[in-house]
Amino acid sequence: MTKSSAPRTPKSSKHGKAKSRRRSRAPGFVFSFGSGKTKGNREMRELLGGKGANLAEMCNLGLPVPPGFTISTEVCTHFSENAGAYPAGLVDDVEAALARVERELGRRFGDAENPLLLSVRSGARVSMPGMMDTVLNLGLNDKTVVGLARRSDNDRFAWDAYRRFIQMYGDVVMGVKAADEEGRDPFSEALDALKRRKRVEEDTELDAADLRELVGDFKAIIRSHTHHLFPEDPRDQLWGAIGAVFGSWDNERAVAYRAMNHIPGHWGTAVNVMAMVFGNMGESSGTGVAFTRDPATGEKTFYGEYLMNAQGEDVVAGIRTPLRIESLRKAEPGPYRELNRIQKLLEAHYRDMQDLEFTIEDGRLFMLQCRAGKRTGFAAVRIAVDMVREGLISKEEALMRVDPEALNQLLQPVFDPAQLTAATREGKLLTRGLNAGPGAACGRVVFSATAATEWAAKGRQVILVRIETSPEDIKGMQAARGILTARGGMTSHAALVARQMGKVCVAGAGELDIDHARRRMRVGGRTISEGDWISIDGTSGAIYDGQLETRDAEVITALFGKRRAAAAKRKGRVFRTYSRLMRWADEARTMKVRTNADQPDQCETALALGCEGIGLCRTEHMFFGEKKITAVRQMILAESTEERERALKRLLPLQRRDFEGIFRVMGTRPVTIRTLDPPLHEFLPHEPAEIRALAKELGVKTARLTAKIESLTELNPMLGHRGCRLGIVYPEITRTQARALFEAAVKVARKTRRKPRPEVMIPLVGTRKELALQAEIVRETAEEVFARKKTRVPYLVGTMIELPRAALTADEIALDAEFLSFGTNDLTQTAFGISRDDSGKFVPAYVEREVFSDDPFATLDTVGVGRLMEIACAGGRETRADLKIGICGEHGGDPRSIEFCQELGLDYVSCSPYRLPIARLAAAQAALRRRAGA
Amino acid sequence: MTKSSAPRTPKSSKHGKAKSRRRSRAPGFVFSFGSGKTKGNREMRELLGGKGANLAEMCNLGLPVPPGFTISTEVCTHFSENAGAYPAGLVDDVEAALARVERELGRRFGDAENPLLLSVRSGARVSMPGMMDTVLNLGLNDKTVVGLARRSDNDRFAWDAYRRFIQMYGDVVMGVKAADEEGRDPFSEALDALKRRKRVEEDTELDAADLRELVGDFKAIIRSHTHHLFPEDPRDQLWGAIGAVFGSWDNERAVAYRAMNHIPGHWGTAVNVMAMVFGNMGESSGTGVAFTRDPATGEKTFYGEYLMNAQGEDVVAGIRTPLRIESLRKAEPGPYRELNRIQKLLEAHYRDMQDLEFTIEDGRLFMLQCRAGKRTGFAAVRIAVDMVREGLISKEEALMRVDPEALNQLLQPVFDPAQLTAATREGKLLTRGLNAGPGAACGRVVFSATAATEWAAKGRQVILVRIETSPEDIKGMQAARGILTARGGMTSHAALVARQMGKVCVAGAGELDIDHARRRMRVGGRTISEGDWISIDGTSGAIYDGQLETRDAEVITALFGKRRAAAAKRKGRVFRTYSRLMRWADEARTMKVRTNADQPDQCETALALGCEGIGLCRTEHMFFGEKKITAVRQMILAESTEERERALKRLLPLQRRDFEGIFRVMGTRPVTIRTLDPPLHEFLPHEPAEIRALAKELGVKTARLTAKIESLTELNPMLGHRGCRLGIVYPEITRTQARALFEAAVKVARKTRRKPRPEVMIPLVGTRKELALQAEIVRETAEEVFARKKTRVPYLVGTMIELPRAALTADEIALDAEFLSFGTNDLTQTAFGISRDDSGKFVPAYVEREVFSDDPFATLDTVGVGRLMEIACAGGRETRADLKIGICGEHGGDPRSIEFCQELGLDYVSCSPYRLPIARLAAAQAALRRRAGA
Repeated sequence: MTKSSAPRTPKSSKHGKAKSRRRSRAPGFVFSFGSGKTKGNREMRELLGGKGANLAEMCNLGLPVPPGFTISTEVCTHFSENAGAYPAGLVDDVEAALARVERELGRRFGDAENPLLLSVRSGARVSMPGMMDTVLNLGLNDKTVVGLARRSDNDRFAWDAYRRFIQMYGDVVMGVKAADEEGRDPFSEALDALKRRKRVEEDTELDAADLRELVGDFKAIIRSHTHHLFPEDPRDQLWGAIGAVFGSWDNERAVAYRAMNHIPGHWGTAVNVMAMVFGNMGESSGTGVAFTRDPATGEKTFYGEYLMNAQGEDVVAGIRTPLRIESLRKAEPGPYRELNRIQKLLEAHYRDMQDLEFTIEDGRLFMLQCRAGKRTGFAAVRIAVDMVREGLISKEEALMRVDPEALNQLLQPVFDPAQLTAATREGKLLTRGLNAGPGAACGRVVFSATAATEWAAKGRQVILVRIETSPEDIKGMQAARGILTARGGMTSHAALVARQMGKVCVAGAGELDIDHARRRMRVGGRTISEGDWISIDGTSGAIYDGQLETRDAEVITALFGKRRAAAAKRKGRVFRTYSRLMRWADEARTMKVRTNADQPDQCETALALGCEGIGLCRTEHMFFGEKKITAVRQMILAESTEERERALKRLLPLQRRDFEGIFRVMGTRPVTIRTLDPPLHEFLPHEPAEIRALAKELGVKTARLTAKIESLTELNPMLGHRGCRLGIVYPEITRTQARALFEAAVKVARKTRRKPRPEVMIPLVGTRKELALQAEIVRETAEEVFARKKTRVPYLVGTMIELPRAALTADEIALDAEFLSFGTNDLTQTAFGISRDDSGKFVPAYVEREVFSDDPFATLDTVGVGRLMEIACAGGRETRADLKIGICGEHGGDPRSIEFCQELGLDYVSCSPYRLPIARLAAAQAALRRRAGA
Repeated sequence: MTKSSAPRTPKSSKHGKAKSRRRSRAPGFVFSFGSGKTKGNREMRELLGGKGANLAEMCNLGLPVPPGFTISTEVCTHFSENAGAYPAGLVDDVEAALARVERELGRRFGDAENPLLLSVRSGARVSMPGMMDTVLNLGLNDKTVVGLARRSDNDRFAWDAYRRFIQMYGDVVMGVKAADEEGRDPFSEALDALKRRKRVEEDTELDAADLRELVGDFKAIIRSHTHHLFPEDPRDQLWGAIGAVFGSWDNERAVAYRAMNHIPGHWGTAVNVMAMVFGNMGESSGTGVAFTRDPATGEKTFYGEYLMNAQGEDVVAGIRTPLRIESLRKAEPGPYRELNRIQKLLEAHYRDMQDLEFTIEDGRLFMLQCRAGKRTGFAAVRIAVDMVREGLISKEEALMRVDPEALNQLLQPVFDPAQLTAATREGKLLTRGLNAGPGAACGRVVFSATAATEWAAKGRQVILVRIETSPEDIKGMQAARGILTARGGMTSHAALVARQMGKVCVAGAGELDIDHARRRMRVGGRTISEGDWISIDGTSGAIYDGQLETRDAEVITALFGKRRAAAAKRKGRVFRTYSRLMRWADEARTMKVRTNADQPDQCETALALGCEGIGLCRTEHMFFGEKKITAVRQMILAESTEERERALKRLLPLQRRDFEGIFRVMGTRPVTIRTLDPPLHEFLPHEPAEIRALAKELGVKTARLTAKIESLTELNPMLGHRGCRLGIVYPEITRTQARALFEAAVKVARKTRRKPRPEVMIPLVGTRKELALQAEIVRETAEEVFARKKTRVPYLVGTMIELPRAALTADEIALDAEFLSFGTNDLTQTAFGISRDDSGKFVPAYVEREVFSDDPFATLDTVGVGRLMEIACAGGRETRADLKIGICGEHGGDPRSIEFCQELGLDYVSCSPYRLPIARLAAAQAALRRRAGA
């Protein structure tokens, strides 16, 4: 139905035949609830929506719920698919249910003496807060308002309810929208005009007569905006509201919310019609929301807020400051006792923290809603662990209760929320980008990695700001508190490295106009120069001018134990519950969890966060050390194999030392080392001044160096001369890397008496022959080192599966591979033909038009990329039954992707260190789900 | 065995047991041939090699073949796999076969009185000319040379044979190599020194005594180079030669040749040991090669060359000019009659043109070899067609006889081979590149597309020289006679467009040092400036200084009939035979053949060359017209949808006119039109001067234009904002293109009363949703145009399958696609993760190390990319049984890829116009093979 047409009650009598046909095969579309005859229960979320199912459940528990009925989600689906038409028989069912409510309350809908008033609310299978429409006080008209006034003995209350109803109905059902550009709706304008006429400041200063005048104004507004009269017939009102709620399932907001939250459109919403109870009927009335535990900390304490003489919207709107629930104990001891009894009962019944809505009408408590309460990550962990201790739930249930992503909150430094609100109010919010690395950071702006390193060395906190980052920036990124880029997405270099480092990162803040040369940027009309303070919130993507304080997460403080342990008591509890949950997760999961790390300190962090090995050590990250980069560049610029080998010889001891450090930390855990992967030009400078400086340093002519750099430039470096293609053209590179790592392994084995377990991984293999050629070099080198050093270490040679062709021919590749590791970043790039670095121009449009239900770089595309992985697993294990298979792409830290890895039967997932807890929990959940499904 | 060790006869007596075991299960390793006891025949190529099988066959036919025996290819495999060891029993078998030869000729191997001499030659399953080793005159030593002298009554001949034997044996078996840097071998030096001492000019002036002296010198050379004595024992000589021939199967030259020609290494070579006959035993002796038809033209005439008193190598070496075979009729009427009888007999027997080797020893004819003769494309077509007419072979056999690629020769302008030889001799060969577009072209060098267009407009022949080409260069490429690039491979833009245009192209000539700014290039120490003449041979990849004349191919002249018809008679025959073969091919094939074309004149060319529709019309190529490019650029630079639509409105009539032209030419044949595909920055200039000019033209600030161009620059444009991603972000582009094409189709339908059949193809689809969004726009636009114009035309909407994900989810995609077309260029790029534009840095190393057996961009990788295609075909047809599926990548014109397309059950292949004859023949062969296999 279109909103501007006047609602009309559907005629049901004509549909008698269809009705009886329908009746014979379905349990009905309308489910009553109340003190008797409640058909629904909590298991019926699919049909009744969450709100409807829980209202029925509360009725079944004998709790005081205003009577009503739920129109099922099936009707919504019918409504959507049939252009707003209802299934046959619905009108009769609604009438019957309505009659039951009338009987229970002894009031009649539309009765002028003792009118029944209704609320009409949406209620989908999962909560979609604020996304769909609600109508309150329904059933009021020029006659019933008089009855309400008489019954409540409160003229002003009755006319206020009436004018609120017309306003809400006009907006929600009849589509009266903002009239002016400032978005003020005509009802509010009329209200303001009235207050000006009456020379009063507050709504509450208007009396019943004023409000009666307003009712007339509101009806006139509806007529002039919609060319329809406000419907006086309560049944027309009811069907108008029902239609509006069903229609709101497909409004833009709701569709966008569903897309974001992976809620299928075919679920539909139910409509809950319930007798009105009034919290605003006087001083012994009130309304509130409460939680059975503290949703922020998880503490086991009854937590909530309420307002006396108010309707629900008043609590939410924040015009009056609500009171804490404790004060209700004194104010209304009877209702409070009852409420407290009910909250305990409900938590025990649902075995989960509940979010409750209640109204007190003239001293009598009514429950309007209960549902599992939203909670912070801290609360989620604590509640789950506490409930196991309390015997409410099992360890397995506790593990399933915590969203793995929520663990992020326990690990990241935080801004004080009050500070953020204040900063925004003060106009300090500069712009927003993508929340690429969660957490909070503030520091002085620098525009180059070099500056970041220098300033940090002087003890200054810096935020590194770049148009985009490259491997050259690694040291600067390490030195910075946070990273801010103007380009790049959630898996851009900046975002990827930041998450691996556990750095706060806001990426792709397109409004930043960065002038690297002049070391300043413009944003929102302001200029920020090098050295100015900014604060970036990697959890929200917001960027603030100036310095907001941050603090370390407790879990981090506890795990690494170096920092001061202020507020030790509360913090101690967070860490203890975190540790317990992690222990349970480790017991439950079947997949190993490794990390992507390439420095000893990262390895230590990863061990503290629970890694069982390294799934990806990128050797190129080691190349940016001061001494190393020169040798690397000499290697790249070599004109002959001999010259290249001389440079490699200089690099060998340096790289060996890197590997030693890692092997020492990792002990006998497996360490997957990838041979050189990125295109060589990434190691060379591209700015004329830098090139001149390098030419001088290397003693070559600038022109020659420039020419060489240009000759290495590629049109599509992602698909260019990189990965094993480097090692095949320059076998001496692979040989040197293999020698460095095996010499390091042997040395550490001898010194520590613990044998490292290197797993050498050849990148970007597309054909078996590529792997065979590289594996031969690695194995020859290993044997040569073992023979020379008279010590062996166990090792494997394998490959990444990051090209579609490799996945498709994994059966052949497994002939030469002892393990496979899915490099799903590149596999996604090549399967989709999308460069992550360039996706910013069209992915926003893709998300908007729902081309992608998920960002395939964040969550594995199980249909396409997943099919490649299935083919590779099947092929690889057909050739080699005991083939070890893992994943080391970004998806290795994504819970839904980890679930898919479990289904594939992978041996391990590998993720960046700070995602290890998430991966451990997600792997446990995947194992539990698989066990439940098996 | 290593070459420098002295050969020794393997001892066989010790292997008695092994021998008897082997005997019991195999038919033997040695196959005698001669006047009796011939075990082999022509069917046994796998075991005996081509030469051995044909020698046996000739013996079976009773032809005069010197007796001998063939050691099978199985021995070669054993030899390769066992480090040069022979299977047990081989020595005994060879002895037995040798004894048979001795008996037949009444001579003894090693006998001082009447010595048997042998030749030892390789012979693989297919001919590998000059790749492996040969030893002649084997069995001579200080004693047997005396017997030979006595028997031949020719001292000089005997000592000459002896010194030649030592020289050949020293080189081939004992590994005496070039001693100085100029590569002259020590034997030749010793010969020269002797001639200086004797003060003679020619070898023939040396007498028996001189040659005897030379024998001593040669033996000394062997001793000093190898520290081994020349083996006097004929059996040691024999086994040394056998080992050398088997060993030569794995020499570098042979390995490279096999890689190039797709010959598996496991085939191995046979060794043919045959009694020597001497063409150099006097004036009634001689030797020659002959063909049963003219291998250049295919004319049915006995064709050959010979020399009297000469050995085979003298004919080949070209020191003496051989005589035409006709003159043998008078000189040696007896042997000639016999030879003529034999050539007719052999051609009739083999039912194919034969290449023969013969020797006349003292007036007696011996056949040394016969095999199917190599021939030019012209000859291949003519011989195949003639033989059908002669009743020798069926049409189907004729079709299978012609290598489709050979048809290229019939279509391309040609250089006169004599001119090429002369130019090379005169030092005009500048360098070589890849033979990317076959044919010959010469012209004045220009370094920009603009210059090419301007110069061509003035009637000048130009060769466009670029570092690499881009779509902006299209008009210049069209204007040029030939295209030469310094970068890019066989499927680079230059190569691809050149082949589509039928242009001569040499790509990736890396030695060219091009200075676009100064309009000159340096190569091989020479500077070539704009306006200088060069000649490029796209068939060989050679580039010459100066102007070599070219001429049009006859078939082209005949098909297009516009050019002068000189030498009409001979040309007429080529065209007639070509046409007949093509007709047979069209009758035999089951797949349709379409073309990739985007201009009306290309369509006309394609129709003349046999296309049945357009498989790929790239709309972007139309955008480079003078008026259009401005509108295109305005569209790209638009800041709002409205601005963009204004620019598109200007573009609409221009594009409509393009489509009209194509529809008019193509009539009711299907025309697949791809919506806009390349990244937008390809349409914008990148040089500062050009940007300034454009800014002026468009009336925008240079800085803004520069910024916009920079914002469109991508790191990996191949994986960036292109294909349907453009149409999804800017739906108005797709809508305008659809409107232009449907309005054009409707207009042509009304004017010509023939309804065009557009098939609209959405590029770069990775998900069903992308296609659905674009298809909806196309279908809506079509219906809107049909309604407005009151005329319908039949049309389809489909997609390219050019991303792995699209192939993997073709079942879903087919829900919205009425046809699929494999874009195997991009599918290969993404499956392998290789950018064609950047592959030059590592693909040469890949070919060298045999990582790729074929260039996957030239021939479909059936294992990886092919698997994706299989999945797509199966998925697509599961959803839509009558789904039309084709291929429009470069592979659509590659015979081996076409064969795979037939196996996949594709409906059509599409290729560039000048590859149509090749595709038609290849499709016919694929259909015939499938029928034979079925």
